[in-house]
Amino acid sequence: MADLIRTIKQTVRDLRPYSLAANHAVVKLNQNENPWGVPEAIRTETFRRLEKCSWSRYPGFLPTQLHRRLAAFTGWDPEGITAGNGSNELIQALMMVAIERGKRVLISEPTFALYRQIATILGGEVISVPLTDQLTYNVNLLRTQMESSSPDLTILCSPNNPTGCLVTESELASLLEVSRGLIVIDEAYHEFSEQSLKSLLSRNPNLVILRTFSKAMAMAGLRVGYLLAAPELVSEIRKGLLPYNLNVISQTAAEVALDLYDEQVKPLVKRLIEERERLYDQLRSIPGLKPVPSRANFILVSSTIPPRRVFTELLDRGILIRDVSSYPMLSNHFRVSVGRPEENDALLFALNEICKREAVNQ
Amino acid sequence: MADLIRTIKQTVRDLRPYSLAANHAVVKLNQNENPWGVPEAIRTETFRRLEKCSWSRYPGFLPTQLHRRLAAFTGWDPEGITAGNGSNELIQALMMVAIERGKRVLISEPTFALYRQIATILGGEVISVPLTDQLTYNVNLLRTQMESSSPDLTILCSPNNPTGCLVTESELASLLEVSRGLIVIDEAYHEFSEQSLKSLLSRNPNLVILRTFSKAMAMAGLRVGYLLAAPELVSEIRKGLLPYNLNVISQTAAEVALDLYDEQVKPLVKRLIEERERLYDQLRSIPGLKPVPSRANFILVSSTIPPRRVFTELLDRGILIRDVSSYPMLSNHFRVSVGRPEENDALLFALNEICKREAVNQ
Repeated sequence: MADLIRTIKQTVRDLRPYSLAANHAVVKLNQNENPWGVPEAIRTETFRRLEKCSWSRYPGFLPTQLHRRLAAFTGWDPEGITAGNGSNELIQALMMVAIERGKRVLISEPTFALYRQIATILGGEVISVPLTDQLTYNVNLLRTQMESSSPDLTILCSPNNPTGCLVTESELASLLEVSRGLIVIDEAYHEFSEQSLKSLLSRNPNLVILRTFSKAMAMAGLRVGYLLAAPELVSEIRKGLLPYNLNVISQTAAEVALDLYDEQVKPLVKRLIEERERLYDQLRSIPGLKPVPSRANFILVSSTIPPRRVFTELLDRGILIRDVSSYPMLSNHFRVSVGRPEENDALLFALNEICKREAVNQ
Repeated sequence: MADLIRTIKQTVRDLRPYSLAANHAVVKLNQNENPWGVPEAIRTETFRRLEKCSWSRYPGFLPTQLHRRLAAFTGWDPEGITAGNGSNELIQALMMVAIERGKRVLISEPTFALYRQIATILGGEVISVPLTDQLTYNVNLLRTQMESSSPDLTILCSPNNPTGCLVTESELASLLEVSRGLIVIDEAYHEFSEQSLKSLLSRNPNLVILRTFSKAMAMAGLRVGYLLAAPELVSEIRKGLLPYNLNVISQTAAEVALDLYDEQVKPLVKRLIEERERLYDQLRSIPGLKPVPSRANFILVSSTIPPRRVFTELLDRGILIRDVSSYPMLSNHFRVSVGRPEENDALLFALNEICKREAVNQ
């Protein structure tokens, strides 16, 4: 058996599986999901449209009807749009067509772990630029690194997971100036930052924007993401996508979410931003905790109590958060998703209790 | 722009996109789908279970509940099973962890086009062994090729698409004897052949079996496939799979299909096999046509009339078939899926008409 595993590439064998332990809790604040769930109007309309829909027939080779809706929604050319089974699939397709042994992928860590995972599997060399001490993007260092190592692909998450920091339009413009490869901006959380870097697309054929239906759109369970780029580039990326990649039900639900976005989704985003600001202010007042300013639907928190202990004590109280202490630079940090008001209250109450007891014990 | 496309790997740029034109017809016999659709009992039970199911929460990192059901269904270890977004995703994951520049992939053509597509994107060298003149597997030639070129991965489809031929258990055993890499058997159509090569798994840790819910299970629109192999190998293959790869709705539907397989799906498979035999006999009686014996839910047909013309004339009559004349060895062939009895009757009537008129015109 040991012999047969040799068929697997060495880079893959060396890789620890990217995984997340399955913990269950009443208050779930560990995966940056929309805490209100899919609005009932979107669910109902989806089921209505699905009545006419066959499960036994293949979906379109590409989800062209969804592409047309996304074109109207984003104001971008439908041939420059491609949807996938979560934005994860699009990251993978993009890397499959661009990365192989000898190619370089520039990332800025700490960030979403999948970029490094996929680049490594494909044999790419990962070049990592650390965030600043304030956990913001170090644009000067990124520029210098781009000039010296000329990466084939740079991937930045904005707002960044798990820190919440942004790449601004002028920062991206300055990176695009020096980049000779592709720059990918993962905008999974962009709705919560009320900014997008999409406006730079038309002048920059080396820019790719990734989006998802898993966060603001409340459809993490349905797995839909999309990508915006120059049509000529998208036609190459599509070669790395599997045919029939998006099932008919998720396609339909995504179309409904776009149709009802303004009245159903937008108000939830606004409420979430208000809750994030409230949660941030309250976290600042808890002794031993220091929240990091965030433009996303989660907050990274620096803690004097070891994050693993905070995680366990909260889980005992039925609250699930994310221990990110194994990420580079984040050994003292945990991450909380912004929940519904009552969930945030429960979190704040528990954290106050844990931190005050700790203060007494010292 | 031309410059930026250079970021895309040369092997990808050289590749023609794998695509299928979207044609619409009343009688759809071009994609080997289950012509009866998902049984109503499966649909209803799926919707019932979905009532309690959130769309906004991520599915499990892996679909472990479905893996457990598949373990019970197949009699194989759940740690040796992994489900994906169609078996296509599993082919991709398997190749991602095993194939890179310098690795060799052995296939037997004509076969399903995706094997060559993905291997090529990943930089692998494709070695192709032709089928025999009777369009069956040339096992002796495959063995010889395995010995001389020592492929890292061999992938054979059984029953083969688009020819319908099988790899038998003794043939596979003889290939496993000489293979030093992995052998993958794609059993997408195995239910219609009433045989499986699964029994060889326990003695052969280098064997991988692929299955799908798209054919007999009537769920092509939901995108579910699974893979059976030694647990140690599966844990490596899972590294190439995306987290949360299977949406909650498709997971649920697949579980229901397994629960109701015996009473709901099995009778449809039996009827389809009967229809295939009837269709085969009738096709043989049409002048100018020669059907190839098939163990799948489709029949490949050799035709004296150019396949493109047969395709167009049938489409004019509202019948959609697959023109496979661009496949190697199949310049005179088209493929028809076995439909419902009345669909097959419509096909036979139209083909009789087309072929008789042709005979008169000559």
